[in-house]
Amino acid sequence: MKKLIVCAFALMSTMATMAQDIQLPAVNMKQKTKSMMETLASRHSVREYSNKMLSNQDLSNLCWAACGRSRDNQHRTAPTAMNKKEIRLYVFTAKGAYEYLPVENKLKLVAKGDNRKMIAGGQEFAATAPVSLVMVMDFNLFGSTNEHAKLMTCVDAGIVCENINLYCEAAGLCTVPRATMDAAAISKLLNLTDKQVPILNNPVGYAK
Amino acid sequence: MKKLIVCAFALMSTMATMAQDIQLPAVNMKQKTKSMMETLASRHSVREYSNKMLSNQDLSNLCWAACGRSRDNQHRTAPTAMNKKEIRLYVFTAKGAYEYLPVENKLKLVAKGDNRKMIAGGQEFAATAPVSLVMVMDFNLFGSTNEHAKLMTCVDAGIVCENINLYCEAAGLCTVPRATMDAAAISKLLNLTDKQVPILNNPVGYAK
Repeated sequence: MKKLIVCAFALMSTMATMAQDIQLPAVNMKQKTKSMMETLASRHSVREYSNKMLSNQDLSNLCWAACGRSRDNQHRTAPTAMNKKEIRLYVFTAKGAYEYLPVENKLKLVAKGDNRKMIAGGQEFAATAPVSLVMVMDFNLFGSTNEHAKLMTCVDAGIVCENINLYCEAAGLCTVPRATMDAAAISKLLNLTDKQVPILNNPVGYAK
Repeated sequence: MKKLIVCAFALMSTMATMAQDIQLPAVNMKQKTKSMMETLASRHSVREYSNKMLSNQDLSNLCWAACGRSRDNQHRTAPTAMNKKEIRLYVFTAKGAYEYLPVENKLKLVAKGDNRKMIAGGQEFAATAPVSLVMVMDFNLFGSTNEHAKLMTCVDAGIVCENINLYCEAAGLCTVPRATMDAAAISKLLNLTDKQVPILNNPVGYAK
């Protein structure tokens, strides 16, 4: 009986945790977005956001645009050096901080609660965005921490970032690419190792 | 009389040099390009190119997409850290190597002749592209060479590179982002200082 109760508790606890992950809806490939020329011409940084939350469909398309699964499980919308896929994407909302899993198209809960102030890092506007995306360079995935690895992972983070910048412009969302943030606090919150380094972030929201 | 001849020679020599610069036609903002969603979905690296040369109109649109003048003289299609605009873009063709000047919309001749083999750096396919774009990080423009400056300029080079990758896909051109190249030879050819560092290149051509 005792064993059964323990099992039931374990199961409930697992389910409770799982329930906090977000299985995103399939990417809406038919979403109307601006043409590439229009997007490049009109893209600009926006630092004011409405408090309207992004829907799960918005998040699905946004994360896919950043570095989602493309063509097959081995490729992403963002190319990486030697296809290392070493940029991890985290999503901060008022409810929690999640890691985006491209193949599963899922947001995996990493930390509950509103930690968007860690993204702001002194620039208060950033904490007003309903969502912030954080790019983390994973040197374990890259397979090296030498000088070349550092430069190439930064390049790859820039590539993911530009996908976000352009997609937001094309899809009617507002964003700005940033390096400012409380990287130490974020690393602690996300349980990052010393080979996983936050490098960039993009607050994202609708126009105010 | 001697002075006059010297003057005439100087003028002719200046004109000869100027004649080799390429004033690009205005960017064709009405060029038909894929939507952002279609572009992200279909972008992929291509390493085979037809030998059809890009027209000056193609080059105008391609360079503008990479890091051209956007909205005003102070902004570019590619955002940069603190708007430093520290990524210089060079264009290698069979005729010469040129620096792209975004505000003037001009290709300024830096070195005559076909030096595309410097881009290949051992990967022969790259020298078969009619055009290669080279991104150079200019730490003088960034205003620092410290660790943060290095990481941010790499991020910014990645951003320019992704503009090229996406634009090519949207406009029916083929490309692949690369770091391999003979950087020492390129630096010498382009008269770069030790604070101007080639970091990435994109061979570009039509489909074979």
